[in-house]
Amino acid sequence: MQNAVSPQLARRMADALRMLAVDAVERASSGHPGAPMGMADMAQVLWHRHLKHNPANPHWPDRDRFVLSNGHASMLLYALLHLTGYDLTTDDLKNFRRLHSRTPGHPEVGVTPGVETTTGPLGQGLANAVGMALAEKLLAQQFNREHQGRRHDIVDHFTYVFLGDGCLMEGLSHEACSLAGTLGLSKLVALYDDNGISIDGHVQEWFADDTPRRFEAYGWNVIRGVDGHDTLQLEAALRAARELAARGERPTLICCKTTIGRGSPNKAGSHDVHGAALGADEVAMTRRALGWTAAPFEVPADVAQAWDARERGAAAEREWRERFEAYRALFPEDAAEFERRMRGELTARYREQLPVLLAQAAGRAEAVATRKASQLALDALAPLVPEFFGGSADLTASNLTNFEGCTRAGRDRWGNHLSYGVREFAMAAMMNGMALHGGHLPYGGTFLTFSDYSRNAIRMAALMKLRVVHVLTHDSIGLGEDGPTHQSVEHVPSLRLVPNLDVWRPCDGLETAVAWSCAIERPDGPSALCLSRQNLPPAARDAALAARIRRGGYVLSDASGAQAVILATGSEVSLALQAQAQLGAEGIAVRVVSMPCTARFDRQPRAYRDEVLARHLPAVAVEAAQPDFWHKYVGRDGTVIGIATFGESAPATDLYRHFGITSDAIAQAVRAVVAPHARAVAGAVGELVPAK
Amino acid sequence: MQNAVSPQLARRMADALRMLAVDAVERASSGHPGAPMGMADMAQVLWHRHLKHNPANPHWPDRDRFVLSNGHASMLLYALLHLTGYDLTTDDLKNFRRLHSRTPGHPEVGVTPGVETTTGPLGQGLANAVGMALAEKLLAQQFNREHQGRRHDIVDHFTYVFLGDGCLMEGLSHEACSLAGTLGLSKLVALYDDNGISIDGHVQEWFADDTPRRFEAYGWNVIRGVDGHDTLQLEAALRAARELAARGERPTLICCKTTIGRGSPNKAGSHDVHGAALGADEVAMTRRALGWTAAPFEVPADVAQAWDARERGAAAEREWRERFEAYRALFPEDAAEFERRMRGELTARYREQLPVLLAQAAGRAEAVATRKASQLALDALAPLVPEFFGGSADLTASNLTNFEGCTRAGRDRWGNHLSYGVREFAMAAMMNGMALHGGHLPYGGTFLTFSDYSRNAIRMAALMKLRVVHVLTHDSIGLGEDGPTHQSVEHVPSLRLVPNLDVWRPCDGLETAVAWSCAIERPDGPSALCLSRQNLPPAARDAALAARIRRGGYVLSDASGAQAVILATGSEVSLALQAQAQLGAEGIAVRVVSMPCTARFDRQPRAYRDEVLARHLPAVAVEAAQPDFWHKYVGRDGTVIGIATFGESAPATDLYRHFGITSDAIAQAVRAVVAPHARAVAGAVGELVPAK
Repeated sequence: MQNAVSPQLARRMADALRMLAVDAVERASSGHPGAPMGMADMAQVLWHRHLKHNPANPHWPDRDRFVLSNGHASMLLYALLHLTGYDLTTDDLKNFRRLHSRTPGHPEVGVTPGVETTTGPLGQGLANAVGMALAEKLLAQQFNREHQGRRHDIVDHFTYVFLGDGCLMEGLSHEACSLAGTLGLSKLVALYDDNGISIDGHVQEWFADDTPRRFEAYGWNVIRGVDGHDTLQLEAALRAARELAARGERPTLICCKTTIGRGSPNKAGSHDVHGAALGADEVAMTRRALGWTAAPFEVPADVAQAWDARERGAAAEREWRERFEAYRALFPEDAAEFERRMRGELTARYREQLPVLLAQAAGRAEAVATRKASQLALDALAPLVPEFFGGSADLTASNLTNFEGCTRAGRDRWGNHLSYGVREFAMAAMMNGMALHGGHLPYGGTFLTFSDYSRNAIRMAALMKLRVVHVLTHDSIGLGEDGPTHQSVEHVPSLRLVPNLDVWRPCDGLETAVAWSCAIERPDGPSALCLSRQNLPPAARDAALAARIRRGGYVLSDASGAQAVILATGSEVSLALQAQAQLGAEGIAVRVVSMPCTARFDRQPRAYRDEVLARHLPAVAVEAAQPDFWHKYVGRDGTVIGIATFGESAPATDLYRHFGITSDAIAQAVRAVVAPHARAVAGAVGELVPAK
Repeated sequence: MQNAVSPQLARRMADALRMLAVDAVERASSGHPGAPMGMADMAQVLWHRHLKHNPANPHWPDRDRFVLSNGHASMLLYALLHLTGYDLTTDDLKNFRRLHSRTPGHPEVGVTPGVETTTGPLGQGLANAVGMALAEKLLAQQFNREHQGRRHDIVDHFTYVFLGDGCLMEGLSHEACSLAGTLGLSKLVALYDDNGISIDGHVQEWFADDTPRRFEAYGWNVIRGVDGHDTLQLEAALRAARELAARGERPTLICCKTTIGRGSPNKAGSHDVHGAALGADEVAMTRRALGWTAAPFEVPADVAQAWDARERGAAAEREWRERFEAYRALFPEDAAEFERRMRGELTARYREQLPVLLAQAAGRAEAVATRKASQLALDALAPLVPEFFGGSADLTASNLTNFEGCTRAGRDRWGNHLSYGVREFAMAAMMNGMALHGGHLPYGGTFLTFSDYSRNAIRMAALMKLRVVHVLTHDSIGLGEDGPTHQSVEHVPSLRLVPNLDVWRPCDGLETAVAWSCAIERPDGPSALCLSRQNLPPAARDAALAARIRRGGYVLSDASGAQAVILATGSEVSLALQAQAQLGAEGIAVRVVSMPCTARFDRQPRAYRDEVLARHLPAVAVEAAQPDFWHKYVGRDGTVIGIATFGESAPATDLYRHFGITSDAIAQAVRAVVAPHARAVAGAVGELVPAK
């Protein structure tokens, strides 16, 4: 048994986690002591005896991944990182939950070294872990080699996840764990903190699942009835899980019966210990009960030494690096490719070929749906972006996320496209896990409307600054007969509100290709491509104009002496151009601005934006969506042609007419804003706002 | 065995469903023939032999509820309604998927008589059905009586739901079915259309669950291995389910093995038959294969007669009405109360007492969090609104959705507050089912940020025009230390985009009480109350001003000769008032508008809105949320003080300072807009937009 310590020392190591959590929450007067206290023994056994990691290098590619899905137990993780030797000091712990500390209320990746993902919204850490385990399996399938009867496995690590009742109640746990079982992600080991308590009290009144049976139904190994405070039982369970993993068939769930707030004489086992500081008296009593004599934030030397994982971690990474160099000697290209992918850099080929690809897209004369244009872009991009891992939530042939020569990933088969099943939320959260793991650029498709189902995972990608791409097709009433349940009217503006999410609604093939390239090149955040079901004609552009698409908004078609500006996106851009032509014939000169990505446009310099918007002119915006957003650009008195109600079930052309989203309606709106503006400019004094 | 027909006729009855679906999809050139063809036998047995309903009165309170959770099979339902005698004609079927038809692409409640809920977004029909079954159980517990040894059960009906693989893959199915099992909703019977096909193809590669085992883990009865095309097996299973229901312990799942597109010689059993018309040739071959000689939309007389359920339905309702009158004779007040609740009318007491209640709220001088103000309103309202059915997704003590004297509903215990567990989506979708069923006014709580999880069910409530109330607390950075995963910055503006949803963000106790009253009184749509964690001071108002809160936006504090307008909501209103005072001391007169519900404000007459907004004045808006929305009111050159990034983990007061949401910042913004405006009014000609 590696790394053994006496039962007494093991207990004191766990108590160190407990007391750091208790003292940090006490100092912050805010936080969650109960879960760290309850999971301390689980954490001690896993982190001290099994977890492969190197505190000096949190980015070592072959480290085991650890996810704390019940993220409110953040102090458990901070205590583990601090004690094992990550760059997280006692002062950091003392600043728990303070502004700009490295110890925020919930763990945040990128803020704290060693934190693998941001958790808090329940269920998502677990789904992230499924994505990480999938990434590991795919990379192992792709990169590990046999040579002269010897294995060269450069990818070979576990994903461990702690989760609680809350995660298991969330629907997302079903989606993710069902798929993990189907895919046979055997190196995923989940430890269930079965403490029988959630915020409303004892869970049996609202959560009476036979969880082991449920997970067996998913095709998992289940290790039942482990006493989560008995280190020998925990050790045996983890050993068994790792042995089961070697069979390569099933993920493993270890059900650990625990007491929330273990160690607190008066509050253990009750929800009182869940989300508030214990209070000075109870802290003192907890100290006495545990026999813990050290002052707050102090750790006895023997305990600190037992926890220190720096030496073992360095040795483990060194051992892997030696293996990696042996691999490199035999497979230099694979080694370089692996390193490139784990760094998240794009291929040189991509940079070279992108202009060619965009020129091809620009050269296509036929009208295509932007979802089809997206597939054409993927066909061309996939050979340049081998890190693509595509997928769809059971709408592959509708979202057109598959590309020429792609392979469906399966239980026993490597692939670069996954049928996620009807699991929008799990898809998005697993994509986040894959991006966090490194080695892939995940994208996934569903209908735009069903981004509602995955919305919080898209938000988490934006918060975590992850490069993932959401392919959201059938983007408005153009979806047609499926009706209002399937027609997004509020989704494009609603996604635009998510900080750090680039929302694209391209108008034709070239804008779609550019959107893809921007999404791929974006290092620090997700992109959502909102694509049409119906065909859209290509707009005419020269090379200079084409180059402006990347700016997110640009003058697509100008007119000298323009009297008004029409702003449009996606399927409505061609209507705007038609209106421009109609108006031109009447002698009304109009500028048409295409705004495929307003977030990107807003990041341009002010001068560019002012030049495009021509803010001295009256403006009309058109988008087959909820209209409020556009007042940001057209002002409160500008006209917005949109849809403020739900859609209807009918053929798309009937719907565009029914909702008044036509070139005629745009032209009429322009006439209406141009006339009073002209009058106002000609004569009005003292009235700044055009009459309406 | 009631209502028996020969096996041959039963098959032809099922084939009538098949061919109506095939022909309607063919005529529309769009739709889903496969699922109706696959489920036709299940539907025949259920609707002909078991379903208690009266086609002449789709609103009979004690009818069985039927939910088609896989709503893309809409033509199955339309064919059933047409054949059994609902007001749905052959012409209606011919207009399938046309604009304003009564046969939209997915079933829509309120559009088609006999459709119980709008389905399409997978999983939600199933969760609606769980809500309906819960409503039935609660009403039965509350209203059924025993008198002199005799039962007087006026509420005694089943909820049947058809569902497919898609519903079962969705996480929502886990949340709803886990809770249905825990609550022992024995009169819920789900029929699983196990056809092994989803859009991406054969499901086993992405959905390998042992579904019976999964549902046993939830505490359901499971009837396995039923041949979904064998009417005898189906009949036996349904009979067994109803007998099991009599034990009152568990819901029942009947697993029906079916062939999608059953009857189509070349496409049955493949995903080709899922979502597209069969094509003329295959339709003809299907006719031949089924031996169906009737022309499209024609039904042979014997089949039509066998389907006609009008007489039986009328008799069933008559029998119930007799029982109800016997009940009324014994329990006149209960009978009247039951009728009132099923009509969805409010009590007379409510109308009488509301002014008193609002006066009490207006009279409270202490600062309270609006979540606490909400609880105070509930305490006062609950006796007046006995149809309240509250709940929380495991945050009862945080959302403060419980009220004085409320009772927790449980497996064997009536109650008017439910701990839904950590199941935000199921809570919202079940609330929809309860509202659809009638008899309750459901409300439920979670943190505002986690409205992301339930978002599509909130949308569905708005689409279905349901009176449900979402209590969304901890509404912004005021949440504090839990950090960005828990801090909504985009959620208030994002919910405002959902058509027909009234989003409230009240600033104090009185606005909160008014928000509740408006939500309760709103007959045709849901409301979301976005409430603060932190205490907010009450604003001063006279009675006339208090009466304006209902308008959604009003001048809370005016100043003679106002030079600017500040718009604010919720926790920022008191900051706006402080800024107004600061500016007043400098001689800058400012109007403060409180806008607790912009949707309601937007429904006011133009003259009122113009008067409030004073559109000739420059404006500043302040809301601790993503700012874009407010340009609708303040114009593109108005200033919006908000948060365009994610939040941070820190105490609330630190965060308000960090994000610059302070009275000083508001005052500074007003100074900045007032000066150039004054210059412009004084002298500028020909420039309509103030320089910036």
